[in-house]
Amino acid sequence: MSTRDTALTFARKQRDANLAQFRELLAIPSISTLSEHQPDMKRAADWIAAELKHLGMDAVEVMPTGGHPVVYGESLNKPGAPTALVYGHYDVQPVDPLDEWESDPFGGEVRGDYIYARGASDMKGQFFAQLKAVEALVQAGDLPINLKYMLEGEEEIGSPHLAGFIEANKEKLACDFVLNCDAGVHSPTAPGITYSLRGLAYFELKVQTAKKDLHSGRFGGSVLNPIHVLSNLIAGMHDAEGRVTLPGFYDKVRGLDDEERDIVAQAAFPDGEWLEMAGAKALFGEAGYTTAERIGARPTLEANGIWGGFTGEGAKTVLPAKAHAKISARLVADQDPQEIEQQLRQYLSDHMPAGVDWELHEHSWGPGSTMNRKSPYMQAAATAIETVFGKPPLFTREGGSVPVVGMLQTILGVDTIMLGFALPDDGIHGPNERQYLPNFFNGIETYIHFLSQLGEG
Amino acid sequence: MSTRDTALTFARKQRDANLAQFRELLAIPSISTLSEHQPDMKRAADWIAAELKHLGMDAVEVMPTGGHPVVYGESLNKPGAPTALVYGHYDVQPVDPLDEWESDPFGGEVRGDYIYARGASDMKGQFFAQLKAVEALVQAGDLPINLKYMLEGEEEIGSPHLAGFIEANKEKLACDFVLNCDAGVHSPTAPGITYSLRGLAYFELKVQTAKKDLHSGRFGGSVLNPIHVLSNLIAGMHDAEGRVTLPGFYDKVRGLDDEERDIVAQAAFPDGEWLEMAGAKALFGEAGYTTAERIGARPTLEANGIWGGFTGEGAKTVLPAKAHAKISARLVADQDPQEIEQQLRQYLSDHMPAGVDWELHEHSWGPGSTMNRKSPYMQAAATAIETVFGKPPLFTREGGSVPVVGMLQTILGVDTIMLGFALPDDGIHGPNERQYLPNFFNGIETYIHFLSQLGEG
Repeated sequence: MSTRDTALTFARKQRDANLAQFRELLAIPSISTLSEHQPDMKRAADWIAAELKHLGMDAVEVMPTGGHPVVYGESLNKPGAPTALVYGHYDVQPVDPLDEWESDPFGGEVRGDYIYARGASDMKGQFFAQLKAVEALVQAGDLPINLKYMLEGEEEIGSPHLAGFIEANKEKLACDFVLNCDAGVHSPTAPGITYSLRGLAYFELKVQTAKKDLHSGRFGGSVLNPIHVLSNLIAGMHDAEGRVTLPGFYDKVRGLDDEERDIVAQAAFPDGEWLEMAGAKALFGEAGYTTAERIGARPTLEANGIWGGFTGEGAKTVLPAKAHAKISARLVADQDPQEIEQQLRQYLSDHMPAGVDWELHEHSWGPGSTMNRKSPYMQAAATAIETVFGKPPLFTREGGSVPVVGMLQTILGVDTIMLGFALPDDGIHGPNERQYLPNFFNGIETYIHFLSQLGEG
Repeated sequence: MSTRDTALTFARKQRDANLAQFRELLAIPSISTLSEHQPDMKRAADWIAAELKHLGMDAVEVMPTGGHPVVYGESLNKPGAPTALVYGHYDVQPVDPLDEWESDPFGGEVRGDYIYARGASDMKGQFFAQLKAVEALVQAGDLPINLKYMLEGEEEIGSPHLAGFIEANKEKLACDFVLNCDAGVHSPTAPGITYSLRGLAYFELKVQTAKKDLHSGRFGGSVLNPIHVLSNLIAGMHDAEGRVTLPGFYDKVRGLDDEERDIVAQAAFPDGEWLEMAGAKALFGEAGYTTAERIGARPTLEANGIWGGFTGEGAKTVLPAKAHAKISARLVADQDPQEIEQQLRQYLSDHMPAGVDWELHEHSWGPGSTMNRKSPYMQAAATAIETVFGKPPLFTREGGSVPVVGMLQTILGVDTIMLGFALPDDGIHGPNERQYLPNFFNGIETYIHFLSQLGEG
């Protein structure tokens, strides 16, 4: 039996054990954006470092950054074979609204074919599957290529320290390509490889019209209401055709030629299926583009949160002093996030009524990126997927953002293979996030084939 | 020395004692809208009942309603003298945002000429001053008129049970006129009497575009964002001239003739002073009206609160499923609150995009009202004010709502005298609510003169 087959057999025997160990990792509430979870971030990093040691990795280290640490480990015992830098993140999003979860967000409850937990899909489940593939190959006696791990803890807050970390550790991280497990496929029966990602620019806006909250009867009708100011600003950010109105917003957007429109169309979900995944009743977006194009190839600007005035139970007749919004843009190549910020400032400055104090705070950003669909690594990933899933992958453009892809391209000069098995309806970032277990187990096998293939090639 | 003068002397000697006792009442956090304060509501009612007994009132009773109780008490020992029904409310607004208070909202800290507490001005301070005037007259040996007290605990939640209570107790509450202490004056040097009040219709709107929160990268740009839907709806509620766009909103609004525009103008604050009281930098309102007219004689529609999506610390790339707003209209005679609800539903229905689930919930309402400036009770109040403040009062239109005025007019057929001493910059409903102490003490004396005058007349 080949090493590959021995590893596959081992992985199948280990399914229950792998699931039990996965639940341990899911139980750590590693929410990077909430400071009270600092100790959990450390626990998650230590848990992963112990696991890397258990897999026989050398030079395992929880490396400090200006924020949450990066877990590093390496196995460089295959001279001549390629070296992959495996990227993942062990941090997760907050879990609110908590009352909409049907089971403990950190319980990892299995219901039907799914395991439910924050991070199950995004993306503890993805890098854990890769680790279990490596474990199977190591158990089978031969890890076929060289590996380096860079598992960060700040992806969900925009990876503020990662570029600096990569810059400071260029030699340590040198590799032939990046294996980024923070990825997904279209459906269990239509596997795909993402070759394009949107970028992100995320902002917080505050508008203030008075020093303090006022009585809506005593002052209402005579001074500005900040909720109205903010509503007008948000309403004006799109025209009637769903196009973003920031000055110059589309100037640098790379268009789609007929070949790419065709590739996008091949991987597109039927509209009805898309609506069902979204749990929505109506499609809405930029005029002149299909849903798949709106997601994969067109930028957005939208409010992720809004708050101001009285939001409690009952009625309070307040004319608030302040209102706030979180606003973010999903960007496509070749939009420049810094230019987007300037455009947003310009828009706000052009449309802000007199007498309003306002502040725009930038949280995080990264450009979009597009990868070479024809590299040998991409081809090995395609072959591995075809072996496990029984059909060649679709090449897809993804609406989400993985800024590290652009960073590694810029700083290390290497391309990335996005190989992960999340599904579009996993509910990531929302309540009842889940991972489809057949994909989890198939993912482990796909990683085994991918690594084996590269070792042979 | 006359009874009146003895009472005035007593009231002046009692200032420190009155302030200390006032602080006891302020210390009870009687927030009617928050269910966890239910026991405090009971405590406040019991405290007032004990005080009424101490003043020698008969038939003192904490009377149950479908919600918080009404405190009743009476003194009917002056046959031939008029009977006043004294109205007040012992409930207060919530105190959020708590971190903007400079001292404990229930501490009653005195800083300079002010006492700071939730309810200091709205309106424990007003009815407490009236009680202390009665105490002084009783101590002086003669309460000159008949009194009945109706002190409710649900004014800040729209008095949902008060109309039923008045209806059920029509005989008990029968009176010649109502003395409503929930009132204010323009400034310490420009005392006034409110003869017109705005009504209120208060709503909560929820819009929902998806079953659950979505990832803004994966779905952003392809389905509706409920914050955008809500922003568009709020933005569209006013035209460029600041006029409300609900269909038929202004149809029944009673216009101002030249005499009333003149009365409004006489009592108007200079714009600069108004801005300073509001803590705002710019005036804004319906085109074609002065600030005083916008407040006193024109209706409004505005958002009192808004919330949806991620509102925590940091960045969360969520495309929310729901967004909410509290929206209220201040109404003037002869607008009908039920018609306003129909107009709002019509507007929402006309402007709601396809595929949005929405709900409009009505919290509370009451019509506006206008009182007779020339009644003997109004004239007695004017004389009392002139005696204490040294100048005749301005007759003013108030922007706030006191729905009980309309209720009592409809059910008991009696007119109301609004006599209270709150100031426009007391910060009611907001953080650091305060009462101006010279007005508090002058208020006690004005009530002594008013009651004495009516007893003599």
